[in-house]
Amino acid sequence: MVHIGQGELERIIARAFGIRGVPSGDAELAAKVLVAADLQGKSSHGAELVPGYIKRLENGAMEPVTHLGIVSEWKAGLLLDGGNGIGQVIAARAMEICIQRAREHAVAVVGVRNSNHLGALGYYVRMAADQDMVGVAMSNGFRAMAPWGGVDPFFSTNPLAAAIPRSGDDPVVIDMALSATARAKIRQAGGEGCSIPEGWALGPDGKATRDPQEALRGTLLPAGGVKGYALAILVESLCACLTGARMSADVRAWYEDYEGPTELGNLFMAVDVAAFLPAGRFKSRMEEMAAGIKKGARLDGVEEILLPGDGAARKTRVLEQQGIPLPERLWKSLQVMAGESPGTGR
Amino acid sequence: MVHIGQGELERIIARAFGIRGVPSGDAELAAKVLVAADLQGKSSHGAELVPGYIKRLENGAMEPVTHLGIVSEWKAGLLLDGGNGIGQVIAARAMEICIQRAREHAVAVVGVRNSNHLGALGYYVRMAADQDMVGVAMSNGFRAMAPWGGVDPFFSTNPLAAAIPRSGDDPVVIDMALSATARAKIRQAGGEGCSIPEGWALGPDGKATRDPQEALRGTLLPAGGVKGYALAILVESLCACLTGARMSADVRAWYEDYEGPTELGNLFMAVDVAAFLPAGRFKSRMEEMAAGIKKGARLDGVEEILLPGDGAARKTRVLEQQGIPLPERLWKSLQVMAGESPGTGR
Repeated sequence: MVHIGQGELERIIARAFGIRGVPSGDAELAAKVLVAADLQGKSSHGAELVPGYIKRLENGAMEPVTHLGIVSEWKAGLLLDGGNGIGQVIAARAMEICIQRAREHAVAVVGVRNSNHLGALGYYVRMAADQDMVGVAMSNGFRAMAPWGGVDPFFSTNPLAAAIPRSGDDPVVIDMALSATARAKIRQAGGEGCSIPEGWALGPDGKATRDPQEALRGTLLPAGGVKGYALAILVESLCACLTGARMSADVRAWYEDYEGPTELGNLFMAVDVAAFLPAGRFKSRMEEMAAGIKKGARLDGVEEILLPGDGAARKTRVLEQQGIPLPERLWKSLQVMAGESPGTGR
Repeated sequence: MVHIGQGELERIIARAFGIRGVPSGDAELAAKVLVAADLQGKSSHGAELVPGYIKRLENGAMEPVTHLGIVSEWKAGLLLDGGNGIGQVIAARAMEICIQRAREHAVAVVGVRNSNHLGALGYYVRMAADQDMVGVAMSNGFRAMAPWGGVDPFFSTNPLAAAIPRSGDDPVVIDMALSATARAKIRQAGGEGCSIPEGWALGPDGKATRDPQEALRGTLLPAGGVKGYALAILVESLCACLTGARMSADVRAWYEDYEGPTELGNLFMAVDVAAFLPAGRFKSRMEEMAAGIKKGARLDGVEEILLPGDGAARKTRVLEQQGIPLPERLWKSLQVMAGESPGTGR
């Protein structure tokens, strides 16, 4: 492992994109969103995605220049076509537009079709919280998760995120897959020779399994059983049915197939707090809630009750100082993609 | 058990409300919402709530006449004061307003403070789906569920509902508590002498328990662990912090304390499908999704993969024919509350 400073990692990633025709502003934005995930310790949504993005750009499977087109528009509702551009650029721009519309109408919803893998959703909902709005984002993706009672994967992990502003502290940031767990955690359990809890996955034979290898060849299960399934349907309905994007079941597998567009869908929402209560009053009520939660008695072994996003925010503060840990091989290949000799710029 | 026809049960409940000063239109509406839950087999949200409602009306703890006041208003966002009226009347009117605003602006959010217990949320979100909109509703309530890592109840079960229109079939109706289970199911397990699964509840000693009696004296746990906790925070933030209602931790216990207002909060949202896609196209895409889900292979022992709301819709069709099963004692007491001699009108 090497530790790379945030700025340096962003620069290298932006350069790798820029060389392949991504306009510099877009390249910097995509790099910033990716590195923000690394800074939160979510490496599966950070720099390690870059080689796959580059491969798509080189194959012509993803457009280097992101053109957002308006499909339909009515006051606080907007449907965009992402033009198979870079997911991070599409999403950040769509949320920007959503925030503008919410400022005007109190609330807004922006759907996107023909979008792409967009990394961790937390970045986009946080944009809304930074403007004293409640932000919501969701996405479909390639199939990985079975419906409740089913065996065949139909949904993606259909991630759902929300950010809520607080006074004097980082916003509450909820960012979760609707599967009981992520494939990365199953892989980790496999690497450590551990079995996985029941309810995480089915094996390729369509039966419940606690064996990580079986699980990886099988299907993820929804979080909270039928409840995660219900929410996955809501996300799929809004991201695919309402936008005209592909259903998750028909989306090209992001980590396997680099030959064409994914045509997945996203949905963004913003609620302007000021339409309801003065933002300051809302944010102090959020602090009151946080204090009430944190002062409660704790389970044995729990040192502190955390709010969603607390852990990631703390991790960020540490990694901003220490640099971002990357496998040396990844760091070298990023540098090569950026046209620099490995070893420089550390 | 006796079986009572839908119309007759609605009439008796409306009469019981009417006698206590509830205007006839409101009394009929509240009765209709309550009986709709019974028709779906959700008896805990139906007629069995009526004695508690009546007790509140008689104690002056709930207002018979529901006056909705506007606290603040900006285009697609509206904050209402429910005036401590009847929860069902408040909620149905708030959703009606939300639908009107969404028709005008594509999307709308209506928050309510000073609201009351409002039964099953499915009724309200279905109002939106009937108008070709995606409806969302949520509520806080009295404390029953611990935060993740905590032992003291802080949240209500913070129910979350959504309805999505489909063509040629009942809408998808999601209506769920964010707790791993409902107290009613723990009571049922206790009655049958069964233990409950791990992850449902903590005992009064703050330790995980599989004993239903311990669980009933303890605290519910969030569905899907930390994920249900995160969603409970989102619901609490929107229903309590954004509306100015009481936090769940401070709401009067609905089933124990009949002495004053609950001052809880709700939030309603509607998204007009037509702002994004022609409603017919959206609804056929929903059918496509439903067909795709249902045609997949099933777990051993699963006869059919259901969509959220399928089970309730089928139950309704049966109970519309057979009548609603009620404990005889409850039916008698409802008749007495309605000023009729028990046994009549069956």
